[in-house]
Amino acid sequence: MRPTGRLQIGNYFGALQNWVNLQSDPANDCFFFVADWHALTSDYADTSAIAENTIQVTIDFLAAGLDPKKSIIFLQSLVPEHAELHLLLSMVTPLSWLERVPTYKEQFENIRNKDLHTYGFLGYPTLQTADIVMYSDPGKALVVPVGEDQVAHVELSRELVRRFNLFYGFNVSPEIFTPQNRKLGRNVLFKLLDVPSNDPILPEGQEITFEQRTMATAYIRQRVLEMGLANFFEKLPAALKPFFSFSSVLEEPDVLLTKTPRVPGLDGRKMSKSYGNAITLSESDEDIRAKTKVMVTDPARKRRTDPGNPDVCSVYDWHKLFSTPERDPGRLDWVQSGCRSAGIGCIECKSAMADNLIQWIAPIRERRLHWEANQKGVLDILDAGSTTARKAAQQTMQRVRDSIFHWAQKRAELL
Amino acid sequence: MRPTGRLQIGNYFGALQNWVNLQSDPANDCFFFVADWHALTSDYADTSAIAENTIQVTIDFLAAGLDPKKSIIFLQSLVPEHAELHLLLSMVTPLSWLERVPTYKEQFENIRNKDLHTYGFLGYPTLQTADIVMYSDPGKALVVPVGEDQVAHVELSRELVRRFNLFYGFNVSPEIFTPQNRKLGRNVLFKLLDVPSNDPILPEGQEITFEQRTMATAYIRQRVLEMGLANFFEKLPAALKPFFSFSSVLEEPDVLLTKTPRVPGLDGRKMSKSYGNAITLSESDEDIRAKTKVMVTDPARKRRTDPGNPDVCSVYDWHKLFSTPERDPGRLDWVQSGCRSAGIGCIECKSAMADNLIQWIAPIRERRLHWEANQKGVLDILDAGSTTARKAAQQTMQRVRDSIFHWAQKRAELL
Repeated sequence: MRPTGRLQIGNYFGALQNWVNLQSDPANDCFFFVADWHALTSDYADTSAIAENTIQVTIDFLAAGLDPKKSIIFLQSLVPEHAELHLLLSMVTPLSWLERVPTYKEQFENIRNKDLHTYGFLGYPTLQTADIVMYSDPGKALVVPVGEDQVAHVELSRELVRRFNLFYGFNVSPEIFTPQNRKLGRNVLFKLLDVPSNDPILPEGQEITFEQRTMATAYIRQRVLEMGLANFFEKLPAALKPFFSFSSVLEEPDVLLTKTPRVPGLDGRKMSKSYGNAITLSESDEDIRAKTKVMVTDPARKRRTDPGNPDVCSVYDWHKLFSTPERDPGRLDWVQSGCRSAGIGCIECKSAMADNLIQWIAPIRERRLHWEANQKGVLDILDAGSTTARKAAQQTMQRVRDSIFHWAQKRAELL
Repeated sequence: MRPTGRLQIGNYFGALQNWVNLQSDPANDCFFFVADWHALTSDYADTSAIAENTIQVTIDFLAAGLDPKKSIIFLQSLVPEHAELHLLLSMVTPLSWLERVPTYKEQFENIRNKDLHTYGFLGYPTLQTADIVMYSDPGKALVVPVGEDQVAHVELSRELVRRFNLFYGFNVSPEIFTPQNRKLGRNVLFKLLDVPSNDPILPEGQEITFEQRTMATAYIRQRVLEMGLANFFEKLPAALKPFFSFSSVLEEPDVLLTKTPRVPGLDGRKMSKSYGNAITLSESDEDIRAKTKVMVTDPARKRRTDPGNPDVCSVYDWHKLFSTPERDPGRLDWVQSGCRSAGIGCIECKSAMADNLIQWIAPIRERRLHWEANQKGVLDILDAGSTTARKAAQQTMQRVRDSIFHWAQKRAELL
């Protein structure tokens, strides 16, 4: 979550609620973080509010029910390993992948008051990939709880990890290039890889140079990437197996699609702080009553005596969130039939919804007030969580660095 | 220096010689490093030789006379702070600056066997800037010893630092936006900044919102960047001075132009490993004699009896490097007059040059052989140097992080 200010009920139902559910399953190791470096990608020109917003977002995490005993809650910039992984991933990130991210061009059209033609903003999806795959645990599933709009980003992360693993986890033995194995390479491997027979890689007869080997290896990698690693290994004849090995360095993340209910703003538009149509997680009872009283309803229901349609009414959308059968049995039916028959008026309906919203928000707001009065404690949670996250990150980076540079082997040789 | 393999005499005269001179001045704090992350920008597809080349390049550093007691010799990837500074600088790096770097497009034309359309390769100059300015010491000059071809990169670094400092070292007090100061802002500041009088920033009368303040601040920064910071402060009237402050976070680097003598390869073309026309720093006497014997000379001197022109002869270029007055007094005059009068033959001339080259290379090669036999010691030097460099880097990063996020102040508030 970016530290852009206090969260509102839309963020709760869009993300936080789901996160709280995830942490309650002991099979999950949950990492949630405040993405302050991501805030810089678009808000580099004024960073004065980032520290304060970081505290506020963390308070919202805690208010919503995230529990530092169950989840690792951390601050991105306190785990500088993310920057190193981002740099290393950047080396294998094709520019075209970044330029084609659907949200990239969209942002230029939507955000006109900021200059987003920066190197950092372009690299946003690579940084996001680093954030996700930093918490790879080989062989364990890695999932990212996101909404529909983020699926394309996670898909890019998957592709990038696949490419990274192929460069640094897929080993081609130099032995395949020795003259005695040349025939095996040319006749069997190249056929498998669909290399045109007149292709100049791996010239016949002579000793292959280091540069030729590099190019041939890169070529093989490219073809294996295209045909898919699993497919390649499946088709690989026994005689060639000793020359190839693979162990994944990073895990490909999977999307855990969050079912996001519709949470329209007070005026029926998308809920957004900049529209002034939101309810924050610390809203007072009075403000909730005052704001919901003037909520936009079914525009066709002009008079009290007109029947209405709850399915196009924002108040009914909110009823579905707050007037749950557990909290207020029968309330949803009451709205459905009362509205359609003009048996109830909008004022009555809003008031019943506000009662339930107030009941729902009470424990959240209470936790929020508790942490607002104890911000040093919030910082301690971020610091402790970041220390824990960093340990996991350092393990990943050890593996990543070694897969690229092979220093462990080199150091052992020199001892 | 990138770890691309063993260095040759061209690298010595192009860079190392100058570095050794720099370290001998106790007024300088010298940092020299092996840029293994930079190697990835173009060689990500085969990294198998990077660790070995890192050792070899470091041996060449030591062979040339770099002394870990006088200079900090380190490995880039052992100082991960470089990645974090690169990430932070990336946020304020305009894409157009990178796309316009003269060497960027050149590389695409010259290097055809590698796919350089990656995010990492595009960001090369930003990473280079991080490498340089990491060793900023506020108020102390920061110089980069480079050849002509690198001047444009250092110029980009200067511009990037200027931009970074303006975002994070130039403070605009929010007080300038309060209604009581509005007139001062509109009438005096805006005139100074040449803001068109119908510009909608800072609307009159009303309380300014956070978003308006952000935009106005960004606008002021942009104008100050355009007019130059020194110029701005010079013209700033006394009444406005309390609202603006500046302290540079990073130092702008200066170029220390290396006088690079011409060191052609054995065949008269540019000396390059891939042309096979180089002499390495560990070349044996026998190889030196054999290789120099067939060096290309003045092509117009076809027969022994033809007079020659040393000014177009690669052998004479090499004489100037090795047959110095201290080593072989009178030798250069001997070549000049003997060649022009056909008094000496090319074989004689090459042999005299080879004698001096062999004398010159002896101590370098000896040091090289010493360290080749003691590679663990080389690694120890890199490790120790990296630890020292990291301490300096951490100080810089403390300053950089705080200039962006202001956590020191925030933490103090929460205690």
